[in-house]
Amino acid sequence: MYNLLKGKKGIIFGALNESSIAWRVAERAYEEGAIFTLTNTPVSIRFGTINDLAKKCKTEVIPADATNLSDLENLFTKSMDILGGKVDFVLHSIGMSLNVRKGRVYDNLDYDYFKKTLDISALSFHKVLQVAKKLDAINDWGSVVALSYIAAQRTLYGYNDMADAKSVLESIARSFGYIYGREKKIRVNTISQSPTLTTAGSGVKGMENLMDFTERMSPLGNASADECADYCITLFSDLTKKVTMQNLFHDGGFSNMGMSYKAMSQYNKSLE
Amino acid sequence: MYNLLKGKKGIIFGALNESSIAWRVAERAYEEGAIFTLTNTPVSIRFGTINDLAKKCKTEVIPADATNLSDLENLFTKSMDILGGKVDFVLHSIGMSLNVRKGRVYDNLDYDYFKKTLDISALSFHKVLQVAKKLDAINDWGSVVALSYIAAQRTLYGYNDMADAKSVLESIARSFGYIYGREKKIRVNTISQSPTLTTAGSGVKGMENLMDFTERMSPLGNASADECADYCITLFSDLTKKVTMQNLFHDGGFSNMGMSYKAMSQYNKSLE
Amino acid sequence: MYNLLKGKKGIIFGALNESSIAWRVAERAYEEGAIFTLTNTPVSIRFGTINDLAKKCKTEVIPADATNLSDLENLFTKSMDILGGKVDFVLHSIGMSLNVRKGRVYDNLDYDYFKKTLDISALSFHKVLQVAKKLDAINDWGSVVALSYIAAQRTLYGYNDMADAKSVLESIARSFGYIYGREKKIRVNTISQSPTLTTAGSGVKGMENLMDFTERMSPLGNASADECADYCITLFSDLTKKVTMQNLFHDGGFSNMGMSYKAMSQYNKSLE
Amino acid sequence: MYNLLKGKKGIIFGALNESSIAWRVAERAYEEGAIFTLTNTPVSIRFGTINDLAKKCKTEVIPADATNLSDLENLFTKSMDILGGKVDFVLHSIGMSLNVRKGRVYDNLDYDYFKKTLDISALSFHKVLQVAKKLDAINDWGSVVALSYIAAQRTLYGYNDMADAKSVLESIARSFGYIYGREKKIRVNTISQSPTLTTAGSGVKGMENLMDFTERMSPLGNASADECADYCITLFSDLTKKVTMQNLFHDGGFSNMGMSYKAMSQYNKSLE
Repeated sequence: MYNLLKGKKGIIFGALNESSIAWRVAERAYEEGAIFTLTNTPVSIRFGTINDLAKKCKTEVIPADATNLSDLENLFTKSMDILGGKVDFVLHSIGMSLNVRKGRVYDNLDYDYFKKTLDISALSFHKVLQVAKKLDAINDWGSVVALSYIAAQRTLYGYNDMADAKSVLESIARSFGYIYGREKKIRVNTISQSPTLTTAGSGVKGMENLMDFTERMSPLGNASADECADYCITLFSDLTKKVTMQNLFHDGGFSNMGMSYKAMSQYNKSLE
Repeated sequence: MYNLLKGKKGIIFGALNESSIAWRVAERAYEEGAIFTLTNTPVSIRFGTINDLAKKCKTEVIPADATNLSDLENLFTKSMDILGGKVDFVLHSIGMSLNVRKGRVYDNLDYDYFKKTLDISALSFHKVLQVAKKLDAINDWGSVVALSYIAAQRTLYGYNDMADAKSVLESIARSFGYIYGREKKIRVNTISQSPTLTTAGSGVKGMENLMDFTERMSPLGNASADECADYCITLFSDLTKKVTMQNLFHDGGFSNMGMSYKAMSQYNKSLE
Repeated sequence: MYNLLKGKKGIIFGALNESSIAWRVAERAYEEGAIFTLTNTPVSIRFGTINDLAKKCKTEVIPADATNLSDLENLFTKSMDILGGKVDFVLHSIGMSLNVRKGRVYDNLDYDYFKKTLDISALSFHKVLQVAKKLDAINDWGSVVALSYIAAQRTLYGYNDMADAKSVLESIARSFGYIYGREKKIRVNTISQSPTLTTAGSGVKGMENLMDFTERMSPLGNASADECADYCITLFSDLTKKVTMQNLFHDGGFSNMGMSYKAMSQYNKSLE
Repeated sequence: MYNLLKGKKGIIFGALNESSIAWRVAERAYEEGAIFTLTNTPVSIRFGTINDLAKKCKTEVIPADATNLSDLENLFTKSMDILGGKVDFVLHSIGMSLNVRKGRVYDNLDYDYFKKTLDISALSFHKVLQVAKKLDAINDWGSVVALSYIAAQRTLYGYNDMADAKSVLESIARSFGYIYGREKKIRVNTISQSPTLTTAGSGVKGMENLMDFTERMSPLGNASADECADYCITLFSDLTKKVTMQNLFHDGGFSNMGMSYKAMSQYNKSLE
């Protein structure tokens, strides 16, 4: 609609199906004039509908396990081939906890699962950045964004070891953002998004009631996947060139609320 | 009980009656071997029972309006007289908003009241520090503490312009803490305390239900006035000499909670 | 360049001359298709060159002292008249400390000056918001931005009582952002900008050396006034509708740096 | 000196030699009336002088690799045996990065080393807590402290993947602190300590110059290992029962400084 990404090239990780935030980012990036490749794990590609998205955006899907260095090398190399040069933006929207899936609570974690949670949900971000830097695959003043959640700062029961993973993810954004900024002027940020009913999100027990609470707490209500996509576009654009190493809350104000009138009124009903 | 403040001298602002945090701090400081003076405004002295506290702690009450520089000069001078030398610790527990009292909501503030809120609840802290420094009234390695609230970081409906006042209060702790630390090794901190049913706190509308929520959100429950007094003692003691310019949450964990099982379970009842 | 603000109306406070951030925001807003009015105090209008900016942007200057409620009422009313309706965005770029100007250091503040600092640099923001809300002068989903500085979180010697003012400013953004969001879906944020050589900034003693340090500390270097203007445009646009109550660092990464190689290398020279 | 820990039992991880913070904590805990066991890895026990400390404190050293669950089980079981019951406090002072040791920079990490860094420096803390909870080895209202560093929030060149490890460490303190608080009233906190010339710290390149900078930046100067030990005592005592899930800066004010007069004056010399 604005040509904000005209001439820009990118790679988008993590679109599974229409409800994925990464899916909406791809659609919006396409509208804004970008070309990009899509990627996900082979399993997610089979399980989801990412090929439909690729068709819509006139692009290709390159399978890659983001914890696997040679997959990532292949992804960046092929992407530069397909797109005709280095990329300008990367979206990392990846997270998974086997402890959550298998119902292991936080004081009964399986440590192999815990390490896998960290590897998939956080170290993969470092790997993406390190591989990109080694291949010199991102243009100067490029922009890299990963999706995070407020559990990195505040404990939410049931979010489990994903909270720790999001903390490392945000730390990696700072640590690598420093180096990538210093050497290539590339910025690295995380967006801390409202709880969102993606396929991943809807797996979390009690998600709907939590979202009722956050909706009432946030003066602007929960942020949707579409709104998150809009926000990503601004971070990929040339208008935010000096924003880096930040964790940016995109949550209708939730993060800075202590108690809203609406949430308290609802809570009060439970006390009657 | 531990003689943590043996030989230490202090000034305690803000004890009104038995439910005041400052009252409990005085009792605990006395138990720990400190000597100190008490102070409050003439109105609060008449309205409350601070003279009983003075008797109990074998000390005197020196009336002072903490927004008035000559009152403060008199307070520090007399205190040094009574105590036989410079003081080692100061507690600032002062806050009042006429906008809250008169029912002016935050988008309909009276600006004279707003300025008074800031003057009484925050600038008074600067005045205490500036007067003390000019009179050289605090010993090297002394400790100054002011009581704050999480509204300084996160908006709670109804807390009104007191939120802004607490923000300045915490800022003054940092700004003056830098100078007082650099020149006299004196530390300045704020304690961000759980909502507490003091006379001041109990005036806030909906306070009890809010405290029900924070009780369920905090893994250790709300912190009481007595527990806050204990914490103050550690900050006045010689065991925390390098802690300065900090805002320290004393709240049973509330500040770092996003959602607890107990609070969510209660909230869920309202949705049934 | 992108028509990001096509059809949008606004009011821009605080342009003095070409080096002002507000000036650059006006130029960029104009390029992006917005119409707006400009405002500053009568003194600043005479002292600066804001009328040249008005000509360039084909608009008018409406004098207003932002601490004066009737001036603000007049400003909003006239602006709606001139622009043909409610506004969509407001920029608040106002700050002044008489203590700084008169060389009163932080442990020797004049309290009348201190109150003036708070009134001009922070309470003016509340007044702008309260007047706008009473006149229903901002469209739903509008965007209000105020310029802040990291001194609100961390003490910089010499920044003096402006640090406290910026703390209140950011607190007001949260407190009013909650209400304005809840009732009108209007978002309120602050941008915490790198030190910038505006006329105001250049008055600060030692500013150039501080900027040398922050330039070396920030992986992307200090953010310029032009870059800040670009960032403001994204916040005024429809792409950031769910960002509110935030303080957003626009500083090349400075805020999340502990120590950079470049800054340390420079510092090391002083130790040789 | 105060009998603050009279009758309390504990376990102290990480004393290597006299310069270790854990060593000083043990000495101070002993002075304050506590009994405790000491632990470290077999390699560290051989390399260091922890047995001298044990003699001094009339206790035993139980070797344990804190990443090994059965070692931890043995440690807690034996400790309860030796001490005659459950423990009241635990100190975790463990950190190591093979990437740092082997000179792998942050954009050229070895991922096996990275995982080891996280396992040793952060996951070990979870393991300590999970094992303790399963064995019901900590008394109600007990206190667990881990040592952290400001690199968890702000990037310092050269601190490398230890920054990410400290982020997870602090996240684990929150996540487990919620559960342990809710179920056993046990508090879990981290202390973010000034850079300290321990054997570990002195291995970091450029450490002395960094410490010169932080000394000049901090109004009270860098905090020493002895001072850190004092602070730990307050957190183990009964006077801080409602402080949990916090990261507490013990750094002479460094964390809230933007720029001090002393550090800037020194820096200015490099520009002459």
